[in-house]
Amino acid sequence: MAMTAAEKLIKAHLVSGTMKAGEEIGLKIDQTLTQDATGTMVMLELEAMNLDRAQTEASAQYVDHNVIQEDSKNPDDHLFLESAARRFGLYFSRPGNGISHPVHMQRLAKPGKTLLGSDSHTCANGSMGMLAMGAGGIDVAMAIAGEPFYLKMPLIWGIEVTGELRDWVSAKDVILELLRRHDVKGGVGKIIEFHGSGLKNLTAMDRHVIANMGAELGATSTVFPSDQEIKRYLKTQNRQGDWVELSADSKANYDIHEKINLSEIEPLIAKPSSPGKVVPVSDIAGEPIYQSYIGSSANPGYRDFAVVAEIVKDKQIARGVSFDINPSSRQILTDLVNEGHIASLLSAGARLHQAGCNGCIGMGQAPATGRNSLRTTPRNFPGRSGTREDSVFLCSPETAAASALKGEITDPRTLEEKYPKIKEPRHPSQDAGLQEPIPIEEAREVELHKGPNIASIPEMDPMPDELVLPVLLKMGDNISTDEILAGGARVLPYRSNLPEISKFTFEIVDDTYYNRAKGVKPQGGHMIIGGFNYGQGSSREHAALAPRYLGMRVALVKDFARIHWQNLVNFGILPLTFVHEEDHNNIEQGDVIRFSNIIDSLKNNKPLYGVIEGQNKKIEVKHALSPRQIEIILQGGLINWVKERAKVKMKEVTT
Amino acid sequence: MAMTAAEKLIKAHLVSGTMKAGEEIGLKIDQTLTQDATGTMVMLELEAMNLDRAQTEASAQYVDHNVIQEDSKNPDDHLFLESAARRFGLYFSRPGNGISHPVHMQRLAKPGKTLLGSDSHTCANGSMGMLAMGAGGIDVAMAIAGEPFYLKMPLIWGIEVTGELRDWVSAKDVILELLRRHDVKGGVGKIIEFHGSGLKNLTAMDRHVIANMGAELGATSTVFPSDQEIKRYLKTQNRQGDWVELSADSKANYDIHEKINLSEIEPLIAKPSSPGKVVPVSDIAGEPIYQSYIGSSANPGYRDFAVVAEIVKDKQIARGVSFDINPSSRQILTDLVNEGHIASLLSAGARLHQAGCNGCIGMGQAPATGRNSLRTTPRNFPGRSGTREDSVFLCSPETAAASALKGEITDPRTLEEKYPKIKEPRHPSQDAGLQEPIPIEEAREVELHKGPNIASIPEMDPMPDELVLPVLLKMGDNISTDEILAGGARVLPYRSNLPEISKFTFEIVDDTYYNRAKGVKPQGGHMIIGGFNYGQGSSREHAALAPRYLGMRVALVKDFARIHWQNLVNFGILPLTFVHEEDHNNIEQGDVIRFSNIIDSLKNNKPLYGVIEGQNKKIEVKHALSPRQIEIILQGGLINWVKERAKVKMKEVTT
Repeated sequence: MAMTAAEKLIKAHLVSGTMKAGEEIGLKIDQTLTQDATGTMVMLELEAMNLDRAQTEASAQYVDHNVIQEDSKNPDDHLFLESAARRFGLYFSRPGNGISHPVHMQRLAKPGKTLLGSDSHTCANGSMGMLAMGAGGIDVAMAIAGEPFYLKMPLIWGIEVTGELRDWVSAKDVILELLRRHDVKGGVGKIIEFHGSGLKNLTAMDRHVIANMGAELGATSTVFPSDQEIKRYLKTQNRQGDWVELSADSKANYDIHEKINLSEIEPLIAKPSSPGKVVPVSDIAGEPIYQSYIGSSANPGYRDFAVVAEIVKDKQIARGVSFDINPSSRQILTDLVNEGHIASLLSAGARLHQAGCNGCIGMGQAPATGRNSLRTTPRNFPGRSGTREDSVFLCSPETAAASALKGEITDPRTLEEKYPKIKEPRHPSQDAGLQEPIPIEEAREVELHKGPNIASIPEMDPMPDELVLPVLLKMGDNISTDEILAGGARVLPYRSNLPEISKFTFEIVDDTYYNRAKGVKPQGGHMIIGGFNYGQGSSREHAALAPRYLGMRVALVKDFARIHWQNLVNFGILPLTFVHEEDHNNIEQGDVIRFSNIIDSLKNNKPLYGVIEGQNKKIEVKHALSPRQIEIILQGGLINWVKERAKVKMKEVTT
Repeated sequence: MAMTAAEKLIKAHLVSGTMKAGEEIGLKIDQTLTQDATGTMVMLELEAMNLDRAQTEASAQYVDHNVIQEDSKNPDDHLFLESAARRFGLYFSRPGNGISHPVHMQRLAKPGKTLLGSDSHTCANGSMGMLAMGAGGIDVAMAIAGEPFYLKMPLIWGIEVTGELRDWVSAKDVILELLRRHDVKGGVGKIIEFHGSGLKNLTAMDRHVIANMGAELGATSTVFPSDQEIKRYLKTQNRQGDWVELSADSKANYDIHEKINLSEIEPLIAKPSSPGKVVPVSDIAGEPIYQSYIGSSANPGYRDFAVVAEIVKDKQIARGVSFDINPSSRQILTDLVNEGHIASLLSAGARLHQAGCNGCIGMGQAPATGRNSLRTTPRNFPGRSGTREDSVFLCSPETAAASALKGEITDPRTLEEKYPKIKEPRHPSQDAGLQEPIPIEEAREVELHKGPNIASIPEMDPMPDELVLPVLLKMGDNISTDEILAGGARVLPYRSNLPEISKFTFEIVDDTYYNRAKGVKPQGGHMIIGGFNYGQGSSREHAALAPRYLGMRVALVKDFARIHWQNLVNFGILPLTFVHEEDHNNIEQGDVIRFSNIIDSLKNNKPLYGVIEGQNKKIEVKHALSPRQIEIILQGGLINWVKERAKVKMKEVTT
């Protein structure tokens, strides 16, 4: 049967399920990436699982998010991650090496492989003919431990590319055109697969730009074929041996068909404060700007910086404009230095920052209150820049450079100069900064370096057969994960310190919760009651991990938001819903509820009840757990489940 | 009469007083510099004074401290400073241009002139044959407005330089040798003047290194002659016309005589946590390091970076070392890029940061908890790096580079390679980024841009005749302004918002101080007790303004660091010293001390006593205030005094 490139990737890695859209499939993961903001918890999870050695072909720990060190927390985390990378046999990319996605592409990405990363832009390496997907931290921890990654089989959305980009138009405008057409939810449940004659006019790094912002369309992943251009790219990286061909069969059938003609695209810009609010640059030309920001994983390539350097060369940027250059990797920065482009940028008035994610994730370079900031980054959600009342636009490097010169939003086609054609350096530098995994014997001797703000995940007990739980909180509808565990600068620095971060649990709802939960814990845990859409919002897994740490065993609500529900399962909290929603009224905060015969009920799909102590009132409850998830819950969460499986495997080997 | 160079500078600018050591003199100020951390307050003071136009020959506003923008506060301040520079006719150096001291040296410094700056390292430009002094913000505001700068005539401390530095030894080791000999108080009340045959072996930028850290000796200023080397330097900056000769007369008499033979100096290092704890590097070689930090105004020159680049060229820094490169100015960075040195640094594993003060003032690059950080910066006071339990060493670029390669503290002479001799580029770039003052008519149209985080200074009451003050803190020797009011990213963003920034006062010494001071305030203020060298270090006037805002009326110590003493006067805090130093032992924290007949005592130079309430114990105290300063103190500070003077002048005009 003729297959698309995405289907070939899935088929080659399928370990469970069938490739029918919407059905759960399990995929073998070849490579993982973690960055520092999510990676510390992943490494603690690996420690809790007693992992000896990464089971993937290549797993890399990058430090690119928290590279501004205003106190000891970030550098302590860097040391921890470095030690964890040595312990578990990971590659380690130290601060200053650059952003995970381009560095991974340069040094590790391989056509035909799967890549799972604890960063939503992991899809960028779909540019290399990989199936590259972002996921939650513990999903990546499981993949590192050799477990499959489970997802619903997506639809394959084929986009046929024709034509060639005109002068002053570049890859960023291609993905902005798709966002203009489909907005930020257009890709949900889909893998975008590019094909067609126009691909020969897009370099590997151009494809990275496009694949990266597939995340903004909500897509599961973006897949480009692995063709002669990828072969050329790998050769420049001294990795020609890693090339294999991958493309859709000529008769492959896409679930969705679309066309894009590169020749027809014009310079586009996403207005504040959504990547989907795309208009032609010419529509809003003339608006004054405060900032022109070059960099991020959305425009990481050598040419993205070089073209800007050529545009501003021997000129001065407009008075009052902050012209911020954020190199994406040390390797690319070195090439830009060697080819004279950094000198051009500096002489024009640029501020040159260290290689990393930086302002793209609100770490530095926040714009002035209410002033317009033009950025080549992938996202402009409100406040993401660090400034509460921000006004961030997303555009191509060409548009950002032209606007920096004029001091106002400028269609680059109106510059009275020749469009600079960028040639990549024939022999780009290869950065030696990526530390390779050390041999396993040496790795076993490594002690994890834990600063004072890093705490191991404590052991969690399996699900008992009976639970007698006080209701510590009774809540209404639409409780978000921000209310369960806030984000922000007050809370997030404790991302690797469960005892500390748990102090903020439900603080917004009821700031006595923490003390009450700590008081109950020795007596065997507690539960909460909620309404509809419990756990909506951000996917942060700490919103399940912290309540579990404080002793929550059951969340009984009217219904759950999907990702939080999954996180509760992963950390061994039993997610139950009312059979009769009106029972929500029959339970008061402070009631104590007894659940009996839990193991038998779950294992054998028998009805489950909660009985309110002293009232003899029976509350009928249900769950939506798969057999795999029931196993996880009974063992006390995913970490225990993996440990148990390791024991079973060990037994199989020794008997 | 034969005069020293310093005396010539003073004589040429004397507007009041006589040049007798210890007597108050008033000096005409030709140039000023302000940086952003102190400058916002200076600009608010100029606004309060209704200043129309700067009265100096050249005044420059630099943005170099708060260049990490994690929210809108810093960029809003930058816009405010830019608007204020235009309004008052100042030069404006935007973020990314670099650190005030080297940029000022490159673009504006002139031999024979006076320079007053609201930064304690302003003395660095003493390298140019200037009388360059750090002062509090309000002193600089007064100077910009055309008022003289008042200080006690210092002793002139002549240091005769002979010989030539050996391989692997550089200018930083010269000033470390002086700190080894004299510690952090050795220069108090003195101007250091270098002379002798060895000077021909020190470049202008070498002299900058030495003059800069005169601040660490506590010196009023450091003066180098303006000789052929300064002429050469100005020529490389296209400013040969600004050169005039300045040197001591051959029969000039120095108050203090000292000799230093460059040929005898070895690589030195200051141990945590004082610039005065200097030992030979070889004494502590082998200690593992976490960080090697290159940059700051203490080692800002092209050669300081180039020599590091040559040492690490074609090598890799040790695994686990954070090798942080902090360019000092865009001009120097551009030269380093053009000459290939930045490429060498990056390839060796460096993290390249934007040009500015950065980690030197705790803005980024904080070291990991308890790990050793080697820095070419001027200061290593506890916590200044941003990490509470830090361990910071000060050394030369050579020592920092050798240690980065080895991963441990390393005497650079033990490297098995040839000492790289650095040639400065023959035609260094001249940065065009410094914005010139705009014409006065245009300037008068400029509106100050005030972000939401800029708050006015509240009114302050005059000195009453009697004070009954609880001792809220009793401290020992060498309390720095960093301990009185920390710098760093947590605190500095509130520099223009007194109610907010005051919350950090004395936090490092005792974090209950703020609440206790707020508790006392309605009852009429409080006082503190200190030891020797109280208020050493950074010149930030907030270290006086914030305690005053919280109700501090008296600081009673063994002796004061000069700038902080002046700042106390400026903001109406009575700076007293013990007549009998052993009385320090007789006062406990919590004691309440009564001062009576203050006005009469100050005005008529009568003895002043503090009486410990309930113990009837009399503490004899004294002050060193001039009649002008007594007036200022009685009126409650300089702002009240200026307002009063304006009223008097107005009366004179109208009657």
